[in-house]
Amino acid sequence: MLNDATDALIPLLPAGVLRDMAPAYLDEPRGRFRGRAGLIAAPRSVDEVSAIVRACADAHVPIVPRGGGTGLVGGQVMPDGTVPLVLSLERMSAIRAIYPEEGVIVAEAGATLHQIRDAAGRAGRQFPLALASGGTAQIGGVLATNAGGVNVLRYGNARALCLGVEAVLPQGQVMHDLKRLRKDNTGYDIRDLLIGAEGTLGIITAASLVLAPVPAETGVAMLVVDSPESALILLSLAQARMAGGVTAFELISGQGLRFLDVAFPDLRQPFPDRPDWLVLIEVGLPSGLSADDALETLFTDAAEAGLVSDGVIARSGQQAADLWAVRETIPEANRHIGAIASHDISLPLTEIARFIRDAGAMLAGMADLRINCFGHLGDGNLHFNLFPAEGRTRDVYDGVRRALSRAVHHMVVTRGGSFSAEHGVGRLKAADLAEWGDPARLAAMRAIKDALDPAGIMNPGVILT
Amino acid sequence: MLNDATDALIPLLPAGVLRDMAPAYLDEPRGRFRGRAGLIAAPRSVDEVSAIVRACADAHVPIVPRGGGTGLVGGQVMPDGTVPLVLSLERMSAIRAIYPEEGVIVAEAGATLHQIRDAAGRAGRQFPLALASGGTAQIGGVLATNAGGVNVLRYGNARALCLGVEAVLPQGQVMHDLKRLRKDNTGYDIRDLLIGAEGTLGIITAASLVLAPVPAETGVAMLVVDSPESALILLSLAQARMAGGVTAFELISGQGLRFLDVAFPDLRQPFPDRPDWLVLIEVGLPSGLSADDALETLFTDAAEAGLVSDGVIARSGQQAADLWAVRETIPEANRHIGAIASHDISLPLTEIARFIRDAGAMLAGMADLRINCFGHLGDGNLHFNLFPAEGRTRDVYDGVRRALSRAVHHMVVTRGGSFSAEHGVGRLKAADLAEWGDPARLAAMRAIKDALDPAGIMNPGVILT
Repeated sequence: MLNDATDALIPLLPAGVLRDMAPAYLDEPRGRFRGRAGLIAAPRSVDEVSAIVRACADAHVPIVPRGGGTGLVGGQVMPDGTVPLVLSLERMSAIRAIYPEEGVIVAEAGATLHQIRDAAGRAGRQFPLALASGGTAQIGGVLATNAGGVNVLRYGNARALCLGVEAVLPQGQVMHDLKRLRKDNTGYDIRDLLIGAEGTLGIITAASLVLAPVPAETGVAMLVVDSPESALILLSLAQARMAGGVTAFELISGQGLRFLDVAFPDLRQPFPDRPDWLVLIEVGLPSGLSADDALETLFTDAAEAGLVSDGVIARSGQQAADLWAVRETIPEANRHIGAIASHDISLPLTEIARFIRDAGAMLAGMADLRINCFGHLGDGNLHFNLFPAEGRTRDVYDGVRRALSRAVHHMVVTRGGSFSAEHGVGRLKAADLAEWGDPARLAAMRAIKDALDPAGIMNPGVILT
Repeated sequence: MLNDATDALIPLLPAGVLRDMAPAYLDEPRGRFRGRAGLIAAPRSVDEVSAIVRACADAHVPIVPRGGGTGLVGGQVMPDGTVPLVLSLERMSAIRAIYPEEGVIVAEAGATLHQIRDAAGRAGRQFPLALASGGTAQIGGVLATNAGGVNVLRYGNARALCLGVEAVLPQGQVMHDLKRLRKDNTGYDIRDLLIGAEGTLGIITAASLVLAPVPAETGVAMLVVDSPESALILLSLAQARMAGGVTAFELISGQGLRFLDVAFPDLRQPFPDRPDWLVLIEVGLPSGLSADDALETLFTDAAEAGLVSDGVIARSGQQAADLWAVRETIPEANRHIGAIASHDISLPLTEIARFIRDAGAMLAGMADLRINCFGHLGDGNLHFNLFPAEGRTRDVYDGVRRALSRAVHHMVVTRGGSFSAEHGVGRLKAADLAEWGDPARLAAMRAIKDALDPAGIMNPGVILT
């Protein structure tokens, strides 16, 4: 796969950074794209990253930065165009420092989410960003994609948890901005520009991150609601009482529970009748309050108000883990069933219930299919995924797939929503961004890309086409 | 003050936008700079803002965007260079919409902080950004400077409270991005680039903002500590218990209390002996917990641990307001005394106590002066202000003022801190930024400025010189 440009590049790279080609460097989890690579480089320091970027800029070789490779929009692979160098952060995985009294950890880009969470836990703190892929996902990629997860409601996206970054910009300059400050108003917010830029404006090599106190009391409950409307009223009620102590509020549909029955028949589900809608609520409360009592009172009052018809409150850490397992196994069950199309959307909270109804009706008129709608309801973020009708196969829908997704995204965008809530744009949604994005914002993005990466070598084809 | 360029501009402007010149358009609160202006324009709509910006870009007339004018770094005035047009957002002050169930308000740039807080309050929510200047400060300026205030510890800076903006970019393009979404990963974060850019990359004309639930229980206490070290241990203790319910944690020095005695002898102070260090703590807690009890327990335990020697817990809203008045009157007392130099600095939390000691010793070796150190200790943000020794006047320090500030900023920056925590750069600290800023970050800022504002008309001289 080598070519003249990469041949010429080799002598310019720091000694020992090249790795053997392996298929894992060219994969992405949903199998939609297959990357190519001339070279795989795994630098051990920010200076080596800088040297590689300089060499690639000089030789006009594109760079695909690669973390854990768990992204869902094809941002980690380059399937066509000039053969790139894949720059893997796997060897830069140190926890450089931890400051429990400050609530700060400084980690290199290649550290996995679980490494960081474990280090925080050992220091009596928590890093409150939780993804199902956290054993593989690396913090560099988590930041580059501004990942979300289940605790955004309380702690924000990756963006909100990052105080500073060390990064290599597209001409090889090293930006040293690993501050441990909650406040620093000294000019343009380059940090937030790199976060969510999916490796197209530079490579984050390390970050200082917020560690939160572990709440004194935590609790988990799963409640049966009759509709997404009721779920949202329940959310309001819970937030009014818990003073920001609602740390997760997840929606699960009956369709998701039935998919679990098919794919994971041994998984323990709390309600034998597979209700139409469930809510998983997690709370973190001050000392002096029992989380169980708070959830019990919420349940009783919500039941009296007709919002909730049944529910379980976890009485142990194991029960809490079992309830979470129901939620977190849904993506695997979805893969087992095989989606026609997946949509990672967000909407204003007051638009959500109507959207679920209207989109369901619209799609029923377009094709015979099943919808598994689930996700981070508290953030207005749904995973709205379409599956073949019972007994059908995916390929039956090949002709209508694109029209289905366009119709979903059109309804989302016209109601003030986003066609990519937490997964990012990558290659998969670059055309959606070009179509649905605000023109002035797109022009500003393009101007910034051209200004910072004039050679266009950083992850070309991602975000901007 | 008119000149050829502004004469030529007048016929290009929308009808009725020009205002009479008034001194208030050329002021800034500390009297360090005095602005000039050829024209004052007060548009009534985003389209009028766009037309004005286009006209100025064509005529090469600089624009100084102006909100409430309360900024402390001279970002709202242009004292030299080509005579500018001052663009006041005073007529764009509508609350466009409020969505209490979503926790979102959409306000125009000219709405004051108090207008927004009042509208939120009427809807049973709170806008948790509080500044002493909130009756005058407008949200457009609050966002442009990424203002902080007393509740950053719990709710973040202005940046963290903004979900979307409508803005006019430097060539007149209108960016429509007034989303009401908690999650929207669709490309570069232009919103956060405009926030904190102090009007140098465009003009924010409206914003969608986060409204938070009002905590069920709130409480305020003022506690006497023997040192900043003890204050920080107290903060850790409080945060471990309150699960994020500590909404403010302010440090007050004995020097500040003595300045209050001089400037506001009638102000009720809780401790007659004017202790060396006080902490004001505010908590917002879930229902089912008494804030008074929680503060009482904290006080007892902190006293047993030797952290706190005395304290008062507010027993009424009036008492809470009285305690806050002690904190919030300090800036006025400072103005009464007359500072030699003011420093709005932040440091990593574990560096703060040592900095206060070391900076005090260093300055004592440079001049005979008094230090009033106070501020948002929970955020690592101190206002470290220098005053003449008793009986001396400010002008005595004219020869040493610059050296004093440089020494303070040098000590801050070498310890991982920031020379502008919450006030911004403006004109006052543009040279500091050029000196202390990371070179790669500065180069990226300059490239972005040139790309988005090629004519250089947006607030020239602010942030980048």
